[in-house]
Amino acid sequence: MKKDIPTTQLCRYDETDIFVRERNLCKEVIGRMSFTDFMFLQIMGRPCGSTERAVIDAALVTLCEHGLTPSAIAARLTYYGAPESLQGAIAAGLLGVGSHFVGTMENCAKVLQEILNGQEPVEKAARNVVSRFRAAKQALPGFGHPHHRPDDPRPAALFAAGRAAGVNGRYIATLETLSHEVDSAFGRHMTINATGAIAALMLEIDVPPELMRGFAVLSRAAGLIGHLYEEQRNPSGPAIWKAADKAVPYAAE
Amino acid sequence: MKKDIPTTQLCRYDETDIFVRERNLCKEVIGRMSFTDFMFLQIMGRPCGSTERAVIDAALVTLCEHGLTPSAIAARLTYYGAPESLQGAIAAGLLGVGSHFVGTMENCAKVLQEILNGQEPVEKAARNVVSRFRAAKQALPGFGHPHHRPDDPRPAALFAAGRAAGVNGRYIATLETLSHEVDSAFGRHMTINATGAIAALMLEIDVPPELMRGFAVLSRAAGLIGHLYEEQRNPSGPAIWKAADKAVPYAAE
Amino acid sequence: MKKDIPTTQLCRYDETDIFVRERNLCKEVIGRMSFTDFMFLQIMGRPCGSTERAVIDAALVTLCEHGLTPSAIAARLTYYGAPESLQGAIAAGLLGVGSHFVGTMENCAKVLQEILNGQEPVEKAARNVVSRFRAAKQALPGFGHPHHRPDDPRPAALFAAGRAAGVNGRYIATLETLSHEVDSAFGRHMTINATGAIAALMLEIDVPPELMRGFAVLSRAAGLIGHLYEEQRNPSGPAIWKAADKAVPYAAE
Amino acid sequence: MKKDIPTTQLCRYDETDIFVRERNLCKEVIGRMSFTDFMFLQIMGRPCGSTERAVIDAALVTLCEHGLTPSAIAARLTYYGAPESLQGAIAAGLLGVGSHFVGTMENCAKVLQEILNGQEPVEKAARNVVSRFRAAKQALPGFGHPHHRPDDPRPAALFAAGRAAGVNGRYIATLETLSHEVDSAFGRHMTINATGAIAALMLEIDVPPELMRGFAVLSRAAGLIGHLYEEQRNPSGPAIWKAADKAVPYAAE
Repeated sequence: MKKDIPTTQLCRYDETDIFVRERNLCKEVIGRMSFTDFMFLQIMGRPCGSTERAVIDAALVTLCEHGLTPSAIAARLTYYGAPESLQGAIAAGLLGVGSHFVGTMENCAKVLQEILNGQEPVEKAARNVVSRFRAAKQALPGFGHPHHRPDDPRPAALFAAGRAAGVNGRYIATLETLSHEVDSAFGRHMTINATGAIAALMLEIDVPPELMRGFAVLSRAAGLIGHLYEEQRNPSGPAIWKAADKAVPYAAE
Repeated sequence: MKKDIPTTQLCRYDETDIFVRERNLCKEVIGRMSFTDFMFLQIMGRPCGSTERAVIDAALVTLCEHGLTPSAIAARLTYYGAPESLQGAIAAGLLGVGSHFVGTMENCAKVLQEILNGQEPVEKAARNVVSRFRAAKQALPGFGHPHHRPDDPRPAALFAAGRAAGVNGRYIATLETLSHEVDSAFGRHMTINATGAIAALMLEIDVPPELMRGFAVLSRAAGLIGHLYEEQRNPSGPAIWKAADKAVPYAAE
Repeated sequence: MKKDIPTTQLCRYDETDIFVRERNLCKEVIGRMSFTDFMFLQIMGRPCGSTERAVIDAALVTLCEHGLTPSAIAARLTYYGAPESLQGAIAAGLLGVGSHFVGTMENCAKVLQEILNGQEPVEKAARNVVSRFRAAKQALPGFGHPHHRPDDPRPAALFAAGRAAGVNGRYIATLETLSHEVDSAFGRHMTINATGAIAALMLEIDVPPELMRGFAVLSRAAGLIGHLYEEQRNPSGPAIWKAADKAVPYAAE
Repeated sequence: MKKDIPTTQLCRYDETDIFVRERNLCKEVIGRMSFTDFMFLQIMGRPCGSTERAVIDAALVTLCEHGLTPSAIAARLTYYGAPESLQGAIAAGLLGVGSHFVGTMENCAKVLQEILNGQEPVEKAARNVVSRFRAAKQALPGFGHPHHRPDDPRPAALFAAGRAAGVNGRYIATLETLSHEVDSAFGRHMTINATGAIAALMLEIDVPPELMRGFAVLSRAAGLIGHLYEEQRNPSGPAIWKAADKAVPYAAE
């Protein structure tokens, strides 16, 4: 093996067989493994245990669909202009799964790692993080939601699912401690949101923060198919165009 | 309900609850449904039975990963230039999931529908289709593979998975009849390929041809995460750049 | 030169020089050529004469900006979700520059080529085309506009620009003949639209139909920068989200 | 005018006229303005003077084409899989115009602004910047090139073009001062690269750093059309696939 060239551990194949992560696709995978199990194996390079399965399924069903989001609107409008390319409409919708909404997941994960892996006791470390974000006038990643109050309903469901599946629970506990410190520091309750809760859950099964966004993109890809299927049968493109045009009127400088 | 405006049946939510296809996300979905089941429900608007689950899982695990495909290469090179946007790298890879490789799925499905829903007996209808494609010098969608011979190993595994899950089998049978006529007409064996087999399976569970590409895109989205995770730890971008540059030399006109 | 490998004629470079189409970038291009002239040379492989320059500039300024189009909305919403990736927002907007709006350009071009290159006299050939599209109940590519009536104002300006720049005029004349036959057949005036006029102009300077969409994409890329610059200073994403959500209400099945 | 809604200053139109930045598209733009002039007006909201024209043209011709770059390869491979969508192939190529190659432009621009707008004399401020980047072990944005040595040939040509067009020159001078400090601190010559030089030039005409990437994307969009035109006539997709597959071999863990 030459050391100076990059390699891949994902897949090898010949005329009669395909192996993914050394599993024979046709003899060990098709008809035998669920999409969740296979995808976890392909991505992470280790088998999907029952805990991992529960966490990944919970994360993916949570982020899949939330109505006419900016991402869904972009996909629908793109399909309107380019119906020859379903993949283009999905890609357009996925391009908005970025730092503003989903980046909070990886940033929250990094905060949780910092709190748990540092020298300070968890409560003190959490308090320090809150102070730092307040001083910088930055929103704390994983907290707050524009529509859901007083609490985003998803974190409790996600934590319950994770605990029922046997996660260790230290990242969930850290996020709950952080939440307590957030409420104290701001003098009012600020909800943990879905991306914050998923960040904690994914850390419980050792998904690295910089990969978390990938699962959000995957989940949303499924959700966008549902939107585009509606668009194929009952197009909303012209109505959205008209509404947006009205919502952003022309104004001479 | 106003008739002159488009509507959506996917999702409604308020401050405390989210409903997708009228299921309470936090009480009936998270921790209770797999990603496969939930996505099928979200997209198709009907529950995912055991047959549907088996077919969708089989299709999704089949299309997820096949090594350094053009789609994976595009994603890796895009990540090399724009590591700030994991979603952009995935989107770039998905943009190549188009008519050349995956369009054969929907075209094969339409051919199978034509054969099965026409007036002629299936064998005669299949023969007519083969003649028409031969006369037009067009490749028959769902047949042939550049690497796998004499047979792509995936169709047999896919058909077995579908039959074990209780599909009716008429589209599989139609594809097998078509395969027989293809071999007769061309005087040599041409393999049914994975996209052809998946087209038949998806028809068995009433996925419309024009939506099939969506599932291929979704499956590939998962596969690309695995490639980008490798890229994060062991970048191949520079090596691929160099290799491609050498493979396509400059030639003055 | 090996025959069995693909080659490129675009660019070669070494440690001290870069040559594009055999022009020294630093000595013959930078500071000496306009973007229009250079891009035409790079794409088409021949120098941009004054006629080509006038046609390309006219086409590009025409397609650049038309307000809050679906493409601009998709770009703005994508930027809202992923402000870290200006390129992603532009790409999302470009993905909608497809068959529905811009594909008419290449289809109109092919119709004009068919009419002019066939055996029949132009008028008869034009009449045949109109009959064929009417029989198939298909819209004639290059005709009709949802907002501009009785006439899209751009074709006259485009034709004038082309003629002033010395185009031969046979494709413009063919489109005018076709327009006459369209009006006769439908018994009412249907405007030539901008994409139809640009198709004729681009044929005058030998841009192949299958490449025309590229120029539309390029022109729109510039227009989208203007939209995203507005978005950076005065975000419309939240307002468009709200308006679209209202325009496509939830309706239980 | 309601204050609480976003507005656009780009375009208004009615049945007979289209106005972009209050210029009548058909009477004042088509046939009268070049693409460079019009795009600058549309984006920046002010007319393109001769200095701006020279700078924008110089920047756009410089970034358009540099052979089989990762961006061009991604576009070509995407077209191979999805030839139905030229816009998808261009978009895939543009998605890689990100922080790694082009982000250096905006980062270099911000460094130049910091040096010029701070309290310290320029030389001292430049020295401080170099020290800070060295201490952080970060590459200085705008310096260094993998292929061109000892000097990237483009900066000199760009500076000459800018000066000939009458730019004030203070950002160019600042970059040259910074270059001097870089060489002193590192004890060897490190070239100013093309993105660094363009950053300085664009600041001279008041293009904000966060918009600069847009012009790089636009320029590359043109370049990609040239690559895809080659791909239409002489496909390189299969050869690049094969080469990449070989460059990144499978290695079991």
